[in-house]
Amino acid sequence: MTDTLRPDAELAPVAEIAEAEGPLRVAMIGHGFMGAAHSQGWRVAPRFFDLAREPEMTVVVGRNAAAVEHAARKWGWAEAATDWRDVIARDDIDVVDVVTPGDTHAEIAIAALEAGKHVLCEKPLANTVAEAEAMTEAATQAAERGIRSMVGFTYRRVPAATFARDLVAAGRIGEIRQVRAEYLQDWLMDADAPLTWRMQKDRAGSGALGDIGAHAVDLTEYITGQKVTTVSGIIETIVPERPLLGESVGLSGTASTERGAVTVDDIALFTGRLDSGALASFEATRFRTGRKNALRIEVAGSLGAISFDLERLNELDFYDATLPETELGFRRILVTEHDHPYLSPWWPTGHMLGYEHGFSHQVYDFVTAIVAGTQPLPSFDDGLHVQRVLDAVERSSAAGSMWTPTD
Amino acid sequence: MTDTLRPDAELAPVAEIAEAEGPLRVAMIGHGFMGAAHSQGWRVAPRFFDLAREPEMTVVVGRNAAAVEHAARKWGWAEAATDWRDVIARDDIDVVDVVTPGDTHAEIAIAALEAGKHVLCEKPLANTVAEAEAMTEAATQAAERGIRSMVGFTYRRVPAATFARDLVAAGRIGEIRQVRAEYLQDWLMDADAPLTWRMQKDRAGSGALGDIGAHAVDLTEYITGQKVTTVSGIIETIVPERPLLGESVGLSGTASTERGAVTVDDIALFTGRLDSGALASFEATRFRTGRKNALRIEVAGSLGAISFDLERLNELDFYDATLPETELGFRRILVTEHDHPYLSPWWPTGHMLGYEHGFSHQVYDFVTAIVAGTQPLPSFDDGLHVQRVLDAVERSSAAGSMWTPTD
Amino acid sequence: MTDTLRPDAELAPVAEIAEAEGPLRVAMIGHGFMGAAHSQGWRVAPRFFDLAREPEMTVVVGRNAAAVEHAARKWGWAEAATDWRDVIARDDIDVVDVVTPGDTHAEIAIAALEAGKHVLCEKPLANTVAEAEAMTEAATQAAERGIRSMVGFTYRRVPAATFARDLVAAGRIGEIRQVRAEYLQDWLMDADAPLTWRMQKDRAGSGALGDIGAHAVDLTEYITGQKVTTVSGIIETIVPERPLLGESVGLSGTASTERGAVTVDDIALFTGRLDSGALASFEATRFRTGRKNALRIEVAGSLGAISFDLERLNELDFYDATLPETELGFRRILVTEHDHPYLSPWWPTGHMLGYEHGFSHQVYDFVTAIVAGTQPLPSFDDGLHVQRVLDAVERSSAAGSMWTPTD
Amino acid sequence: MTDTLRPDAELAPVAEIAEAEGPLRVAMIGHGFMGAAHSQGWRVAPRFFDLAREPEMTVVVGRNAAAVEHAARKWGWAEAATDWRDVIARDDIDVVDVVTPGDTHAEIAIAALEAGKHVLCEKPLANTVAEAEAMTEAATQAAERGIRSMVGFTYRRVPAATFARDLVAAGRIGEIRQVRAEYLQDWLMDADAPLTWRMQKDRAGSGALGDIGAHAVDLTEYITGQKVTTVSGIIETIVPERPLLGESVGLSGTASTERGAVTVDDIALFTGRLDSGALASFEATRFRTGRKNALRIEVAGSLGAISFDLERLNELDFYDATLPETELGFRRILVTEHDHPYLSPWWPTGHMLGYEHGFSHQVYDFVTAIVAGTQPLPSFDDGLHVQRVLDAVERSSAAGSMWTPTD
Repeated sequence: MTDTLRPDAELAPVAEIAEAEGPLRVAMIGHGFMGAAHSQGWRVAPRFFDLAREPEMTVVVGRNAAAVEHAARKWGWAEAATDWRDVIARDDIDVVDVVTPGDTHAEIAIAALEAGKHVLCEKPLANTVAEAEAMTEAATQAAERGIRSMVGFTYRRVPAATFARDLVAAGRIGEIRQVRAEYLQDWLMDADAPLTWRMQKDRAGSGALGDIGAHAVDLTEYITGQKVTTVSGIIETIVPERPLLGESVGLSGTASTERGAVTVDDIALFTGRLDSGALASFEATRFRTGRKNALRIEVAGSLGAISFDLERLNELDFYDATLPETELGFRRILVTEHDHPYLSPWWPTGHMLGYEHGFSHQVYDFVTAIVAGTQPLPSFDDGLHVQRVLDAVERSSAAGSMWTPTD
Repeated sequence: MTDTLRPDAELAPVAEIAEAEGPLRVAMIGHGFMGAAHSQGWRVAPRFFDLAREPEMTVVVGRNAAAVEHAARKWGWAEAATDWRDVIARDDIDVVDVVTPGDTHAEIAIAALEAGKHVLCEKPLANTVAEAEAMTEAATQAAERGIRSMVGFTYRRVPAATFARDLVAAGRIGEIRQVRAEYLQDWLMDADAPLTWRMQKDRAGSGALGDIGAHAVDLTEYITGQKVTTVSGIIETIVPERPLLGESVGLSGTASTERGAVTVDDIALFTGRLDSGALASFEATRFRTGRKNALRIEVAGSLGAISFDLERLNELDFYDATLPETELGFRRILVTEHDHPYLSPWWPTGHMLGYEHGFSHQVYDFVTAIVAGTQPLPSFDDGLHVQRVLDAVERSSAAGSMWTPTD
Repeated sequence: MTDTLRPDAELAPVAEIAEAEGPLRVAMIGHGFMGAAHSQGWRVAPRFFDLAREPEMTVVVGRNAAAVEHAARKWGWAEAATDWRDVIARDDIDVVDVVTPGDTHAEIAIAALEAGKHVLCEKPLANTVAEAEAMTEAATQAAERGIRSMVGFTYRRVPAATFARDLVAAGRIGEIRQVRAEYLQDWLMDADAPLTWRMQKDRAGSGALGDIGAHAVDLTEYITGQKVTTVSGIIETIVPERPLLGESVGLSGTASTERGAVTVDDIALFTGRLDSGALASFEATRFRTGRKNALRIEVAGSLGAISFDLERLNELDFYDATLPETELGFRRILVTEHDHPYLSPWWPTGHMLGYEHGFSHQVYDFVTAIVAGTQPLPSFDDGLHVQRVLDAVERSSAAGSMWTPTD
Repeated sequence: MTDTLRPDAELAPVAEIAEAEGPLRVAMIGHGFMGAAHSQGWRVAPRFFDLAREPEMTVVVGRNAAAVEHAARKWGWAEAATDWRDVIARDDIDVVDVVTPGDTHAEIAIAALEAGKHVLCEKPLANTVAEAEAMTEAATQAAERGIRSMVGFTYRRVPAATFARDLVAAGRIGEIRQVRAEYLQDWLMDADAPLTWRMQKDRAGSGALGDIGAHAVDLTEYITGQKVTTVSGIIETIVPERPLLGESVGLSGTASTERGAVTVDDIALFTGRLDSGALASFEATRFRTGRKNALRIEVAGSLGAISFDLERLNELDFYDATLPETELGFRRILVTEHDHPYLSPWWPTGHMLGYEHGFSHQVYDFVTAIVAGTQPLPSFDDGLHVQRVLDAVERSSAAGSMWTPTD
């Protein structure tokens, strides 16, 4: 790790912990795509990172008994359960990992914190600001009792993104002049793709804005070390009606001949102002044809710039404006050196990491903070702030793109 | 040329012109950076393109007698003159090429049109909408007398950009879903760079917005075939004060210890809606550290996408969404084939064109339209519309980024 | 998987296996870098792939008791042992996974095959052709008894490389015209890096040639479906002497002031002829400054080309020469679609895989072949052929680069 | 210009020349593709560069009277002539520019030198070593009389290539460890493309080897400052027979149904050793599907590396190995700064140059050397050496790729 650059909370003095307190027993609530990714994190992190307490994949929870049994076997959890309240009440659980859809985050996370469990909650923290506030309040109270909470913006933990933050924090790009952050996908470009819950506001909260725009906002705030204070923007639905799913519910259901209204945004375009006054422009879209998972951020400063693209996640482009004029240029750094963030326990130089490695890094940081008694980051407060930015974007859009404060 | 795709105005039946009407005698008003580029166009175009009338570089005009004499020798004009009104009155001039700063465009162009000269006017058409309207009115009246006028958005004539337009016009990317257009530079990132006329609103009209944002708007309208109807945006000055120039005026003047106010924008961020309702987001900036001349446009459609970057101007990225799913990807087309737009008279495949080739293409299209008696594009009307977009952006910015119609 | 394109051996009819035969109990001999990678494969593959028999990480073997105990705990093996002969003799072992240095491969693998264990052996198959021949002979005899063997050229199992093979096999690039394969690293560019066993011929067999050149040869033969029949080349040591390691042996030992001779090559440059007569040029080097792990292959054919670079392992560049001339270009395919090879059990489109995923794919293919009773690929025979190519390169180099047959 | 790095011969003290000696009157022998490019150089160079003597495009020479008349008009030469001997004998000619096919270079160039004309001769210098030796001998004798000669390897004068040389010469990449140089095209990949003179040994001398391999050799020698002393390689014809051209001779002739033998190479693969002992590997091919004009060179040194690709000719990738390990990477330098080689008279930063700009740079250097009385580079001696390398490659290929000295 690049120790000199990383904040204390993430550099807990693990070595000083005289005695391990036994394994960290984890209950995971939910078992969809994120459940698979988190399971991989819990399974793999202890093999590569020195964790002061070894995680145990104790129980996975889901409403459908057969499905959760299958998930337990598939993803390697010792038990399956169907009632998360029962599980939270158990004495043999230390950590609750919430990977359900956003509309249930608040209830589960708050109950788990009150039950004295450390909570890792997937992003977005909640579907509404009010829920996120309640969660943050619960997290604050829990922290006084030594209970830790963290929100799962794992893209902070792609080593190239972490290293970008390190460079910015070390002053290598100087004073931040402007930011461009975009998250481009195209999986909804087929206008006849069926209408799933992700396109329904009551279930999903929002569309591209909350699903992927949230990552663009968090990454901007993380890398710059600043918050978005006010926004002007527009959200829009490009395909307003889609075929309803047929009888067999689920993502794989056949499309019906009836059509229903898409009630979330397909695209969100907004501009924000950071603490320092610098402008940041954002785009989140599911309609950028040909772009599959392009979370990109470029931060321009008075002394340099960094540029990152999740589609080439092992690379960071760095421009050092202090070099001689004839030698200026964006430098493609392969972020795979032993001294790059999170890299020391992995493979030799030039051997690439993939998507799910971030989940191991998340486990490492979370467990380290629990054992060290420090606040893991991003905190629920960080997650709440992202939620406030998203909410302000929706309000700005409804008000003719008028500038709208986030707090 | 890709004849099947290009509009009639640019495909004038030159071959049918039975008899050439003699050379086309050109007067160029102004002789700065644009004068050099235009001179190169007038000199080189006839060597590579079959022009129905051969241009003659008759006279170059500037206020400073010594400077214009030097320019005439350097850039190869037969004569130098100091009074543009005298030159416009001459019978032996057929074309007036206006490459002065924007605040003088209207007066010169209108006078030239009234004097019966064909006019090529550098972009932006004017510094204000009112001036641009007057010029357009003059152009319309002149057209009735067979006098042609064109505005110099030469980036349309980079073959890769023209080919992008051709692909869009041919329906290859389907219905346009969204557009991203940005023009990124960093030449003002030094906060102590001196305050020149380009940073003074009374001289330059605007900053990044008019200087380079205008290109992003024109290229968007050109490639999509649609106009921007309404905008929401913000313009901002990042470095509000700069050292005044010392005694020796000019760009190379030494900076004084006094500082003056920068009265134009350094950065413009705006969103526009196209005729079809599709959203386009724009950025023009002189502060994107490390980006030198990155005019980039990406157009996403229901059947594909195109992506262009002026820093790699011989390439076009094309995504054809109709291919099999496992074979989808952006294709890097080297736009250097004989059958690509404007390429047939140049070099063999893979031999690159540079910045100034667009000025030869401009001469070719302009002369062709004059001889064919058709309207060369972009017309003053096109230039006026770009001016209206820029004006609406300024008004939107002043009104808290409220959506503002362009007409 | 792209079933239609992949050969039978890799498409074993797993579904038809009526009844699983219980877990597949694995002993891994060795526990260095490759041990870590193989452990990750054995651990992770069953979570993502449907394996007809579940692997059990039964025992890891190493000479140093303390070290192997540590490895067992770290990498998750149930037991540690110090005598590989004892382990091979155990009835509760089904598979022997050999990840020791090359000079011990033959002895261990042959003994394991004779003991009736399926064998997965890391590349290079052996340090000499004679050893590799003996191993292949043992593998052939074992196969008659239903015992399977495979050599670990995992880069075949990077999905983009597999997909390249699929495209070639499907005739998409037509008749192969020429091949360029290179594996570029720079980790020895410091002339004062200490002399380790990897630079000693008696231990390592060869230098860049066998370590990384072997991958370039195997990938060429895999993707083209052809063998290298004759070669002309040169191998060379760029830094002939290096500091000896000091007292504390091991990679991290301090360098001594004495210097010793480097007895292996730093760079290998050779040309080979394929079965079809096409020429392939190869480069393996530890001195290509700035290149970290650039295993690149480009295959040019009469109808198209493919281009792959391990430093961007989720991408394949594909050139389809049958498209219209103005639309030709290398297409950057993100090989992350559900229908790409090996991708279906992993993440959604655009979520990247990393280096070690290939080891899960290897486990999947190996287990599938064992259960199906088919020959897993690459076979020991394939590994022997690579060894013969490397040997012929050394002989050609010694003979003034004279063309030298590989068989 | 980066004055500190460039050798004296190219930094002639032009400013000290008290008085110009009048215009430099040029006769160009030949008027094909190279004639067009050279004409553009003679026309444009004086507009951008300060030349101590202004070139005059006096006369163009060709065997076919009608064709050369047309060329004179098209390319802007004052006169056309059909007998080069007459032209060379004229008193009003100062410079002879030879752009005919290689088999006539020797006769024309030697005669011109003997007639006291400065000679610029297109590459390759000649079709055989013997001719090249005679030319070099004539050049040496002429030099004693103040007559200058230069061979036209213009790719040295792409600013990014020149800047690469500057960096190497300044020691920025340290001691050269190895070189990779390749020139990849695919214009012959159609096996039914007709057999033109370029595929006939008696006319063209060789195929890919002399046409484009020569550039790879020259650029290697230029950038490294070293010569290739010995080679091992193979040349090969991939499509051995092609349709003969029909009745209407010329490149555009229709293919006949008869086929004839291709007597030159389609591909050349060779390895060379430089003065310092470093190895350089070369590839020249007309069959690398999808590569249009990819002259690429990468030079790896003990302190860094440079990488250049003619398909992106305004860029140079530079790797500075002396930076901190976590910040290492290839830096994409846009070679468009005022202080980059040849750039000062051209456009602002970020405005790209194209293929033919190198011909203006060639004129500038040639004229500067003539006026300064210094040896312009590359000299005929440099051209002779390239010829010897090519010849050695052919001999090595014929001798089973045996290593063959170039001198």
